[in-house]
Formats: sequence, structure tokens, C-alpha cells
Amino acid sequence: MSSSVRPASSDFLSRLTAIVGADNAIADPAEQAPYLSEWRDLYMGRTPLIVKPASTDEVSRVLALANAEGVGIVPQGGNTGLVGGQIPRETGCDIVLSLKRMRRIRAIDPAGTAMTVDAGLTLADVQDAARKAGRMFPLGLASEGSATIGGNLATNAGGHQVLAYGPTRSLVYGLEVVLADGQVWDGLRTLKKDNTGYDLRDLFVGSEGTLGVITAATLKLFPEPDERTTAFVSLPSLDALLPFFQLAERRAGAALTAFEFMCDLIVSFVVQHIPGTRHPLADDAPWFVLLELSGAEGSTATPMERLLGEASEAGLVSDAVVAQSLTQAEVLWKIREAASEAQKGEGGSIKHDISVPIARVPELLVKAGEAVQRVCPGARPVPFGHFGDGNVHYNVSQPTGMARADYLALWDAMAHAVHDVTVSLGGSISAEHGIGRLKAAELVRVKSPVEIELMRRLKTALDPKGILNPGKLLAP
Amino acid sequence: MSSSVRPASSDFLSRLTAIVGADNAIADPAEQAPYLSEWRDLYMGRTPLIVKPASTDEVSRVLALANAEGVGIVPQGGNTGLVGGQIPRETGCDIVLSLKRMRRIRAIDPAGTAMTVDAGLTLADVQDAARKAGRMFPLGLASEGSATIGGNLATNAGGHQVLAYGPTRSLVYGLEVVLADGQVWDGLRTLKKDNTGYDLRDLFVGSEGTLGVITAATLKLFPEPDERTTAFVSLPSLDALLPFFQLAERRAGAALTAFEFMCDLIVSFVVQHIPGTRHPLADDAPWFVLLELSGAEGSTATPMERLLGEASEAGLVSDAVVAQSLTQAEVLWKIREAASEAQKGEGGSIKHDISVPIARVPELLVKAGEAVQRVCPGARPVPFGHFGDGNVHYNVSQPTGMARADYLALWDAMAHAVHDVTVSLGGSISAEHGIGRLKAAELVRVKSPVEIELMRRLKTALDPKGILNPGKLLAP
Repeated sequence: MSSSVRPASSDFLSRLTAIVGADNAIADPAEQAPYLSEWRDLYMGRTPLIVKPASTDEVSRVLALANAEGVGIVPQGGNTGLVGGQIPRETGCDIVLSLKRMRRIRAIDPAGTAMTVDAGLTLADVQDAARKAGRMFPLGLASEGSATIGGNLATNAGGHQVLAYGPTRSLVYGLEVVLADGQVWDGLRTLKKDNTGYDLRDLFVGSEGTLGVITAATLKLFPEPDERTTAFVSLPSLDALLPFFQLAERRAGAALTAFEFMCDLIVSFVVQHIPGTRHPLADDAPWFVLLELSGAEGSTATPMERLLGEASEAGLVSDAVVAQSLTQAEVLWKIREAASEAQKGEGGSIKHDISVPIARVPELLVKAGEAVQRVCPGARPVPFGHFGDGNVHYNVSQPTGMARADYLALWDAMAHAVHDVTVSLGGSISAEHGIGRLKAAELVRVKSPVEIELMRRLKTALDPKGILNPGKLLAP
Repeated sequence: MSSSVRPASSDFLSRLTAIVGADNAIADPAEQAPYLSEWRDLYMGRTPLIVKPASTDEVSRVLALANAEGVGIVPQGGNTGLVGGQIPRETGCDIVLSLKRMRRIRAIDPAGTAMTVDAGLTLADVQDAARKAGRMFPLGLASEGSATIGGNLATNAGGHQVLAYGPTRSLVYGLEVVLADGQVWDGLRTLKKDNTGYDLRDLFVGSEGTLGVITAATLKLFPEPDERTTAFVSLPSLDALLPFFQLAERRAGAALTAFEFMCDLIVSFVVQHIPGTRHPLADDAPWFVLLELSGAEGSTATPMERLLGEASEAGLVSDAVVAQSLTQAEVLWKIREAASEAQKGEGGSIKHDISVPIARVPELLVKAGEAVQRVCPGARPVPFGHFGDGNVHYNVSQPTGMARADYLALWDAMAHAVHDVTVSLGGSISAEHGIGRLKAAELVRVKSPVEIELMRRLKTALDPKGILNPGKLLAP
């Protein structure tokens, strides 16, 4: 489809500039630079023009013009994506459409159930606005200061809260989307139940800007729980992980709001490399779990105590510490949150964002470990992640003493091996980060031809000229 | 699109019969009868043949043949739908595809997280199988003994559990779908997180058989909560409803698993007409709420007590009774569950399945009441429903003494008036029941042309010949 997308003429560029105003049309390479590379430096794009519309109407006019001309449009939020979806191709033909000027909070529902915001608001600003309204927007990401809510929706971002609140998809009532031809679909609703036709909202969420440009969203707000009880627990073996999770789920139900697992090596990396951390347990167990119960005042401490007692009696838990204050809880969370950063102290790291059915996580860990050793003997897997979601950050630190560049040259081979194991277990090669450019070829490799064809039919139906984020998600 | 759908030739009927076997192809009108009318007797369809395939492969071959011939196919589960979606048109050209022979439980995930079943299994059988595996499938409907899980998915059925567990859409990991041309999309996954392309699953859920035929689903299973605390509460005024819900949500969070409201009149109808019921409170308040907290052992009684105390002090609740046993809880639930049946003792009832943003439910009740009086002075609205979902069963009993037939002749005029109020408040004309034939014309009236066009583009992309459930959801 992208073959039909043409380079921009200078007349076209002038007309685009007229829509957004000269101050909001960036042609200067130095000014363009921050929009054209991403933090992992995997991609460096080129574009004749970056346009920054101020309103849905301006987005609509930009798209109508681009569609008429057959020029590619790359929507961009905070430029924090990890798979290159927000970067224009090196061809230098695509226009970048930055949503960053669209930052209004349009409305907060009087019941505090919902908030309608422009797509370019940062996630941190969304969280703040919810807090000021006495409510909570549960999505939380390391990049929340820069990432925009529109980008979160376009990529269906994940995070720690998924176990209890679901991914971004679950946190939105309705969308406003500008279609390829500039038509505006007003799907901004605040309805928990609505069975009136096809689920258009969920088609746009996670479509990475290839089916339409999300310009606003009505988000779900939640009450902040009265209290949280946090525990850090050691497990005697990998085999204890699943039954311990099942017991926690059975005893705590919806109150179980986090169940994060870590291997012993990543915990020791954190303690070694992150200042101000120390091992919460004396125990040198092979696996650790950080778990959290949330709920009404007085509803979480006793169930946590009972759960840990029962798990201990059943031999699923060897040692445990329960935070007695918010500060202690933060100290425990710090171990988990510093896991990515701690790896930097151990040289190169090859990362995989994968998920499998939860019952198969232990099997994944064993088989992926074997596959990794075949690609690079001595490489050190440091798996951790959201066990309750079946989502493993299967990161692999380099062998001690190996040259970093030599190790990173193995990235594709190792990713291939780990993805093959993942797919053989019914898993996903992208649990949280999406496809973008990084995994577009891999997507075609692992999905059935029927599924790829279905996606292509939807793409053609909504973007017949292929102008929306060309070359992303569905490789040409 | 349906104009391209042709009558079936006798050769075509023979070939269809050969696919499913003569015993599973019903041409005899007497045998056909139970498949051609529905329980509200709104529609009476005609068909040359009802086919009952035993497998996905047979469904695939039926569709491939029908698509090649351009003959319409009407998928049918338990024939319990309320909007005529499962009934073939009166033209007598469409083939009925009954899924009722496909009743296998294909697999239960070893972690008890998921269960894969054929589409024709009844909801009651799904619930039983989950229970036998020590888990819970939370969807519950009055028609669960006949309704099939495939039909529940195709219509995104609602129910009492939506507040805590969401509609059917939220209860499924993956689907197997036969496409219009007979290709099979295997989307049977068990992943909580999967960001690898467009959300095909949610496109098929709720599409009422117009985009593909769901032949199997991987369902989410949940742990049964250890305990429930149920209360029946009277409110001093309509104005107390929203703040009381908000307080309950704030104090109980995810533990709040039901918040059903009822007007005084429907409670008195129940007590009067349903044997074995009595009013739980002496209080003659205008509004009542049945609420339930669920969770771990020992986690619900104290929060309920505190919540009711606080609500009482704030003047939001005038009286309350808390069930002290399972039997007492069942007695309280009986009041709510008998609400529809109790109306029969009061003559004709005109029913609306509507939802609005939760903050606007009180406004809806006032304005719909006024609209109803303009259409039929003396008509008696008896609103009740899932307040926490913004979903009101806005049922209206006839004026005392009016002839039932005269009253029911006002159905369309009253529905029109109530739907207009609903839409003016940002609401939905079909919260739970779907569009089918009953609301296909109304859908075009209340949706934007952009949204209707988007739906048509998707329909054309997935079913270019328009053979799938012609005349339903999107009127020709």
C-alpha cells in the first residue's frame, strides 16, 4: 500500500503550513531533530515537514489534504515508543503530525467517572488532573512525563496496573478519531454498556496510527483505594510460582493489584548497582515476588497475613516481609522498578517483551533459557515482570567479560530464538510495546496468513490510499 | 448489500445437505418452527433449510458454498435474542445455520485461567464446567439454560455481573471465527496482553453474526469470591442515588460487585404479585438499592457496616437491612430478580434497554418520565436496573384500567420518545440487547453518518457479498 504514497510537492507543503501556521510547521533540520530519532537510537527518520496542529479541525484539514495528494502522515505523541512506530521512514517523503499542541482537558464528568482530554496531553498531566478531581487514572509508565495519552491509546500501552485495571484499552470509554480522508468520527461517550453496532473504539486502540489519528479520548477514572498492603516474598523454586499466584488470586480476588516476579540474579543486580537499595530478605532463594493487595480501609492486612501463612504452610513461600508503612512499601517497590536500570551495570542487554498463557510462564522460562544458551553460551537471562499477566520482560545480560558490541550483534538471532519458543507456547512476541517497524517483518512470520489478510482488509477499508503511518505494523 | 443475496437453488440445498448430513438439514416446516419464531413473537421467519453443522470444518464448507452462490446465512444459537437478530427474513431465501450441535468443551487451561469451548454450548453448561474446574464464569442471564455462549459473544450480552466483571466482551481471551468465504481465523489465545496488530476479537464480539460466524471461544475463568455481603437499602430521594453510589465505590472499590436500583412501584409490584416475597423494609421510601460486596474471607462485612453508617449520617440512606445468611441474601436478590415478572400482574408493559453516563441517570429518569406522560398520560414507569453501569430497564406499565392492546399500540411512539431523551443525554438505545432487526432503522436515525459509513466499510471489507445475517444490524 505504501507504494501509492508520494513525495510532497512544495505547493502541498505551503498549504499544510497555512493550515497550522508558520510557527507550527517545522522544516529546519536542527529543529526537527528531536522528532526524528528515538531514545534507543534504532531509527533515524527524515521528513520535509513536521506539522503541529492545535485542534481536531486542523488535524482533519491536514489529513484531507494529505489523502488527496497521497502523501504519508506519521502521527507522533511524546516520541517515547520502543518499536519505531512514531518515526518517519528514511525516504524523507512522510509528513510528521505532532499532537503535542493539543493539550486541553475538555471535560470532567460530574460523577468523576470520566474525563475527556485532547490526545497530546501527557500521561503525567492526565494523572494529575484525575488526582485533582479526587480520582485516579491507573495507567502508569516510566515514560509518563513525556508520553501522551494519544500515544498510549494508539499503542495500547501496558504497565504495572494491568493485573487489576487492564491495559490502556480497558481504561477508555470513547475516542475522537480523524479518519484518513479527514472525516471526524466522534465516538466520545461515557457509557459502560453500549451494544449499538461494531466496536470501532477497540479497532483504533492499538492500531498504531495506521487506521486513523486519535485526537481525543474519554478516559475512565477510578476511586483511589483506601489502603494497600505490600509484601516481598521468596519462593523455594520455579515450580512454586504458579500455585502461589493461584492461591493469592483465590484468597484475594479483585484485591490482588500486583504480582510482580523477579529472578534472584536481577534482585542481586539491583542491590549491587542501585544506590540506597538492600536485599529485603536474608534468604538466597531462586525467585522472588512482590505482591500487593488494595481495597477499603482495614480490608487488606488480614487477608495478606492469612495468604502468606497458608502459602508458607504449603511450602510455596520460604520467607516474606510485609511493609509496615508507605515508606517500607516504596523501598520494596524500588527493587522491582530499578530492575531495568540495574542491568546497565552488567554490560549489554538484549530485551524481549513477550507474553504466554500464565500457566506456561515456568515452561517459557526453562525453554527460553535453553534457547539463549544455544545462541550465546554464558549469557545471563534475568527474567522479571508481570506474572499475573503472563508478561515476562525476558532480558538477557551479556556473559561476563564479553565485548558489549559482540554481544549486541546477536540481538536478532537471540530475538528469533526467544520468539520461536514464545509462539510455540501460544504466546505473543509483543505483549506491551506494539509492532511499529521493529517487529513488522516478525509479525508476518509468526501470524497466520488469514490473520494478516484480515488486517490488510481492515487497513484498506479505512485507509484506501495507505497514507496513515506507512511502513508500520503491516509491512508493505 | 443484501440485494446481492440470492434465493437458494435446489442443487445448492442438496450440496448443503451433503455437508451436514440429511439428519442435520431441516426442510420440514413443522420441524423448522422452533427456529423461526422468538419468544416475544415479534418476528416469524421463513427459510428453505436449517443446517446444523457438527464442526468448524462443516461451518467453513457451508459458508464457502453460500458465499460462492451469494445466499444469505443466518447464524443462530439458543434463539433467545430479544431483537430478532437470529431469525431469517420473511423473504424465505436465507439459510439458518444453527450452532447447537457444536457443544464440546475443547480444553481447560491447567492454571484454571481459561476454558476453550464450542460456540453452541449453553451458558449454563459453561458455568457448570467452570464450577467443576473449581472456578467461576461470571456471565449470568435469565436465559442461560438455552442461550449459547456463541450467541452471548455475538451479541456482547450483559447481565448483573457487569459492574465487577464487565460485559461478555470482557470475559473472552480469544475466538475462532469462520469468515464469509469459509476461511477460518484461529484467534484462540489465552493472553492477557498481546499488542500484535488490530483487535480482531472485539470486532467480531457484538457484531451479531454480520462479520463472521463465531465457532469457538477461549473464555476467562475467575476465582469464586470467598464471601459476599448483601444489603437492601432505602433512599430518601432520587438525588441521593448518585452520591450513595459514589460513596460505595469509594469505600469498597473493586469489592463492590452489585449496585442495583429499583423504584418504589416495582418493589410493591413484586411484593404484591410474586408469592413468597415481602418488603424487606418497613420504610415507604421512593427508591431502593440492592448492593453487594464480595471478596476474601472476612473482608466485606466491616466495610459494608461502615459504608451504611457513613451513608446514613450523610442523609443518603434512610433505612437498611444486611443479610445475615446466604438464605437472607437470596430473599433480597429475589426482589430484584422478580422485577420483570412482577410487571405481568399489572397489564401491558413497554420496555426500553437504555444506558446513559452514570451521572445522568437521575436526569434521564425525570425527563423520560415527562416524555412518557406526553405519549400516554397515566402510564406508570417502573425503572430499575444496573445503576453502576448507567443501565436502566426503563419499563413502563400501562395506566390502570386501559385496554392492554391499546396501550401496546403506543410502543413505537413511546420508544421513540424515550430514545430521543436517551440520545440527548449522550446515551445508548441498546445497552444490552443489540440492534438485530428491531432497532436497525433506529440505529441509522441516532448514529452519525460518519459512524454508519465506518460500519458499512468494515462490513464490506469482511463480507463483500453481504451473505452474513443480511438485513440485521446495518439495514440495507
